[in-house]
Amino acid sequence: MPNPAVLGIDLGGTKIAAALVGKDREVYWEDNIPTMASAGLSEVVNRIKGLIEQASNIARPSSIGLGSPGPLNIKKGLVVEAPNLGWSNVPIVQLLKEISGLPVYLENDANAAALGEQVFGAGAGFDDLVYITVSTGIGAGFVLNGRLLQGRDGGAGEIGHNIVVEDGPLCGCGRRGCLEAVASGTAIARMVKERLQGGESSLLQEMAGGELERISTKLIGEAAQLGDPLSLQAIRVAADHLGKTVSGLVNTFNPGIVVIGGGVANLGGLLFEPVREIVRQRSFASFTESLSIVPAALGGRAGVLGAAAVAMSRL
Amino acid sequence: MPNPAVLGIDLGGTKIAAALVGKDREVYWEDNIPTMASAGLSEVVNRIKGLIEQASNIARPSSIGLGSPGPLNIKKGLVVEAPNLGWSNVPIVQLLKEISGLPVYLENDANAAALGEQVFGAGAGFDDLVYITVSTGIGAGFVLNGRLLQGRDGGAGEIGHNIVVEDGPLCGCGRRGCLEAVASGTAIARMVKERLQGGESSLLQEMAGGELERISTKLIGEAAQLGDPLSLQAIRVAADHLGKTVSGLVNTFNPGIVVIGGGVANLGGLLFEPVREIVRQRSFASFTESLSIVPAALGGRAGVLGAAAVAMSRL
Repeated sequence: MPNPAVLGIDLGGTKIAAALVGKDREVYWEDNIPTMASAGLSEVVNRIKGLIEQASNIARPSSIGLGSPGPLNIKKGLVVEAPNLGWSNVPIVQLLKEISGLPVYLENDANAAALGEQVFGAGAGFDDLVYITVSTGIGAGFVLNGRLLQGRDGGAGEIGHNIVVEDGPLCGCGRRGCLEAVASGTAIARMVKERLQGGESSLLQEMAGGELERISTKLIGEAAQLGDPLSLQAIRVAADHLGKTVSGLVNTFNPGIVVIGGGVANLGGLLFEPVREIVRQRSFASFTESLSIVPAALGGRAGVLGAAAVAMSRL
Repeated sequence: MPNPAVLGIDLGGTKIAAALVGKDREVYWEDNIPTMASAGLSEVVNRIKGLIEQASNIARPSSIGLGSPGPLNIKKGLVVEAPNLGWSNVPIVQLLKEISGLPVYLENDANAAALGEQVFGAGAGFDDLVYITVSTGIGAGFVLNGRLLQGRDGGAGEIGHNIVVEDGPLCGCGRRGCLEAVASGTAIARMVKERLQGGESSLLQEMAGGELERISTKLIGEAAQLGDPLSLQAIRVAADHLGKTVSGLVNTFNPGIVVIGGGVANLGGLLFEPVREIVRQRSFASFTESLSIVPAALGGRAGVLGAAAVAMSRL
């Protein structure tokens, strides 16, 4: 029989992941199922109930950590607004308490992933960690002195909407020049497509079989590895903005490690080398000595293991 | 007889301030003396010893909180580098322990001031506070969930050297375009003087009796209050950069309150109105609702009361 366990649940727009984790940090069980948000809130809650029952067949968890897209109101246990789920002001903590009879701890998904990397992943052994996830959007989470930074409403880490280019490209949030609008995977693909539409040529045209919509960050990374100038330039623009942002965060937090995750981190050295160089140039020298800037280690599991870590931190 | 007290000491380049504070946050005694750093380290330590003895005549403190200019190594109890004191790698914690027989807790001076404002000043009642001090330099301190953010080496908060204007004015740190180089009191005065030397005219010339070196941030503020365009513009440039920085910090930390101190904060509405407007425009709407951006309340006492608060936080 495993020692007391907690259940981490990562609620996403497309899937719900769950992991049963022991106090010794051993993962006893892990699974994920489609969210099917379009079927409505009670169906989603039912599907979560199914995961809780599956886990309980292995070991009854003592509590649940829940990672959810935000904005949240952590004190009230609400998902304030989650466009991917079609939810607004959903009392998710209350709902999961009712179906499980367990304490439920809610956390923003990027923040949970930060804690996941600190407890189980690339940041293990570091008390002060800056985590940035770069995929279609950009978010951050901060573990400081071993504790997750939440902020007044649990919203800390919304660096994706810091404005870094005055009057820059339009962002999904309605403002212009947000970090997310110039350095996310979406932004990299948009830059490339705009330049192709402007008449430039690139290996990408052949690689995508002439279909612009097939051009993804992954494909751009492959073209860049083959030396495609347009792909290299688009990645470099994003890396420059990320590097400047990381440099400011290093001065602000004086972290022991910076972990970068999300799909764009799979670009590897093409992204990390410029970021490291820019941080070395721009941040306090004593802060960058022995500072590691590394890729996330948990991939898509950071959220669910982080949600478990949120529950563990309350044990 | 007062209840158990702690002694806060704020070590500065020109003066050493001390305050004896009870557990009930009552200030029993406060004094300050010249640092006389040029007389050497042992003389400075002797002068601190005198302050400890004065305090002990009123009530024996149970511990000492020490605020010092940085960079520090808090874990090792060192002042790594303090140009104003002419110190490098001074084991100040060990020295004060030896002369006092008391536990000594070292903290960066801006961080101590942040805690001072949170415990005794404008941030009282707020768990999550961003504190920025704008005078000859710019620094910050963060109280998060009631605790001071220190970072790996105790250096968190060095936002003054975040680069905000590429290839901007030269900063004291050797880089270009740091926040400190465009938004500090020094920067405001430099902007004004450069434009006067470039042939522009201003009320300031008369107010300073024709002597450029008499032009201070305070005088510029007075001229601005009288409608002087050059002074208004220089303050507005600084306020714009500060506002953008505060806006990023609000997205990052989701604080309950932002407190701005230092001499430049005495510009009042000329500084605060644009800062508040820019933050309202640029930060997450849900974060800025009910967010206060206010002047510091403790003035020059933030450092010494903060140092006492550092010791109190360890009781």
